[in-house]
Amino acid sequence: MMRKAIALAARGVGKTAPNPAVGCVIVRDGAIVGTGWHRKAGTPHAEVHALAAAGPLAEGADVYVTLEPCAHYGKTPPCAEALVAARVGRVFVGQLDPNPLVAGKGMQILRDAGISVESGILEENCRRLNEPFLKWITTRRPFVVLKSALTLDGKTATASGDSQWVTSAPARREVHRLRGILDAIMVGVGTVQKDDPLLTCRIPGGKNPVRIVVDSGLNVPLHAALLDGKVARTIVATCNTDFAKQAEVARHGAEILVCREKDGQVDLDDLFAKLGALGLQSVLLEGGSRLAGSALRAGCIDKCLIFVAPKLVAGEGMGLFAGAGVGLMKDAIALEQVKVRKIGPDLLIEGYPVRK
Amino acid sequence: MMRKAIALAARGVGKTAPNPAVGCVIVRDGAIVGTGWHRKAGTPHAEVHALAAAGPLAEGADVYVTLEPCAHYGKTPPCAEALVAARVGRVFVGQLDPNPLVAGKGMQILRDAGISVESGILEENCRRLNEPFLKWITTRRPFVVLKSALTLDGKTATASGDSQWVTSAPARREVHRLRGILDAIMVGVGTVQKDDPLLTCRIPGGKNPVRIVVDSGLNVPLHAALLDGKVARTIVATCNTDFAKQAEVARHGAEILVCREKDGQVDLDDLFAKLGALGLQSVLLEGGSRLAGSALRAGCIDKCLIFVAPKLVAGEGMGLFAGAGVGLMKDAIALEQVKVRKIGPDLLIEGYPVRK
Repeated sequence: MMRKAIALAARGVGKTAPNPAVGCVIVRDGAIVGTGWHRKAGTPHAEVHALAAAGPLAEGADVYVTLEPCAHYGKTPPCAEALVAARVGRVFVGQLDPNPLVAGKGMQILRDAGISVESGILEENCRRLNEPFLKWITTRRPFVVLKSALTLDGKTATASGDSQWVTSAPARREVHRLRGILDAIMVGVGTVQKDDPLLTCRIPGGKNPVRIVVDSGLNVPLHAALLDGKVARTIVATCNTDFAKQAEVARHGAEILVCREKDGQVDLDDLFAKLGALGLQSVLLEGGSRLAGSALRAGCIDKCLIFVAPKLVAGEGMGLFAGAGVGLMKDAIALEQVKVRKIGPDLLIEGYPVRK
Repeated sequence: MMRKAIALAARGVGKTAPNPAVGCVIVRDGAIVGTGWHRKAGTPHAEVHALAAAGPLAEGADVYVTLEPCAHYGKTPPCAEALVAARVGRVFVGQLDPNPLVAGKGMQILRDAGISVESGILEENCRRLNEPFLKWITTRRPFVVLKSALTLDGKTATASGDSQWVTSAPARREVHRLRGILDAIMVGVGTVQKDDPLLTCRIPGGKNPVRIVVDSGLNVPLHAALLDGKVARTIVATCNTDFAKQAEVARHGAEILVCREKDGQVDLDDLFAKLGALGLQSVLLEGGSRLAGSALRAGCIDKCLIFVAPKLVAGEGMGLFAGAGVGLMKDAIALEQVKVRKIGPDLLIEGYPVRK
């Protein structure tokens, strides 16, 4: 039943910000009498949908919900109280809500009303639904996902810089799907200068992410396609304090985000703090190699999604990370919870960098 | 039943050279009455073992054999005739034998005796048992397997050259297993200078491969561990014709194989032809990056076995192939028949480079 609730929740992933995606299933006498998922911030929560569907059958029923029912008045009344009012029998919770406004209070309301509660059901699967929310709600920083596409010999491009295409069409579609569910997409200015990308989600009906260009020196070409703020919001993060130059870039459509400087570059730690303060819960980091290397070494990457295409550049070419790597192999940054799946002919390897 | 025969054949892989590994199952009335596999050149073939086990029950029985029964008098009499003499009912063959001494003649002997024959049963699986034999018997060149171990960001070593270890102990054991079943192992002289490897099979009871050092200039250190011919045979392939230098290396334990020169280096095409003439059916190419790049670009690699460890050097480091790679991504060398499996925490990605 929790798996069913997770599948329901998954339908809301990428659409509920700043809220988490949540699914709920209500079961009575072995039969599902109500289901629901949270669709969009400001609209009813998963439990409310499921209770409405169950009607009087909710009384004494078992409720499976992927996240602890909320306990606070936000745009909607607290779900924990709605469950109490419906006189449900037992509540099974996937994961406690780390949101300080909830954080166990939802469980307490249920317990106080004499409802049997249990949490931690398929917790890991529930947690994965809402990685960006869970990081942001506890740290106010976005969850940063590094995405790259490599040949099997580890090249993102040939020595001349050609990278069209490393991966297959199905893998590239998966990237657009990611763009549609994450809040923002980030590249270094070098990538803008070289490729002039749009960085939009090219899936019909897909939401465009906020586009962020890390541009320490404010060298973004003024004719760059992504400066056009009509297609999607664009933020140029810089530590160049030349106001005239900032104003010029702003006039071409982008917002300017002035960050602290570190070693002559935008301080990534400060940048991510500022992006979190803007309410951006997730960032898809797409390159280039200098930005990816700096972000990884600064400990800013939460998750890696590496597409590996079964082909070989067969000699020198461009790598995933520029800059000084580790000195000894034993100091390499390990990934944990590694998963591999095939997408078309390519592999998608995902994992979480272990912080030391 | 053919799967059973394949599993039997697999027990001989790496031990039967110059013969192929073959398995045989004899079935009568739905029951297995005899099994066999070829254990070692000069000893009875799989069919002979299986017929001996079946005894008079072989009459009218079904025979499953992974490779076409032989038709020629070698060190043992032809198996096709033994099957005829045993008056078996039907013969199911995995793959026809491309050996010109057999090549359909075994099937003909059976057919002429009125035995029903069918070939191509699980042919691909049967072919995989004997990739080295099948290439060598038809081209007199060894089957060349490139093995490498990379981090997920495509590095074989850190920028300082440290590579201990990229992969886990289970992955490194798999490499020793490969050394035990392939005829030879090859490295460039740079690897010998840098790592002074032994290149032996460190699995108890494992056979050591012939060690081949590609050393165009004859710069192998005379104190190199692998020059000691007592542990295993060592061949130094060179295009340096300085006889005194050759004699000096030979005095330290290695055989000298003088090859044609191409662009100042050992001509790999000539080298592999010479190794094939020496009866070596398979070569495990272990590095370094210059040799691997030259061999791949020269079209000498038949199969790639790439171990990928879920870790990141996170910046510059050593790559798999040195030298000029392809200019455009669309010209990258594709791998086909790609398979992925997990070995400990690492991935093993195998595939066959597509020749244009």
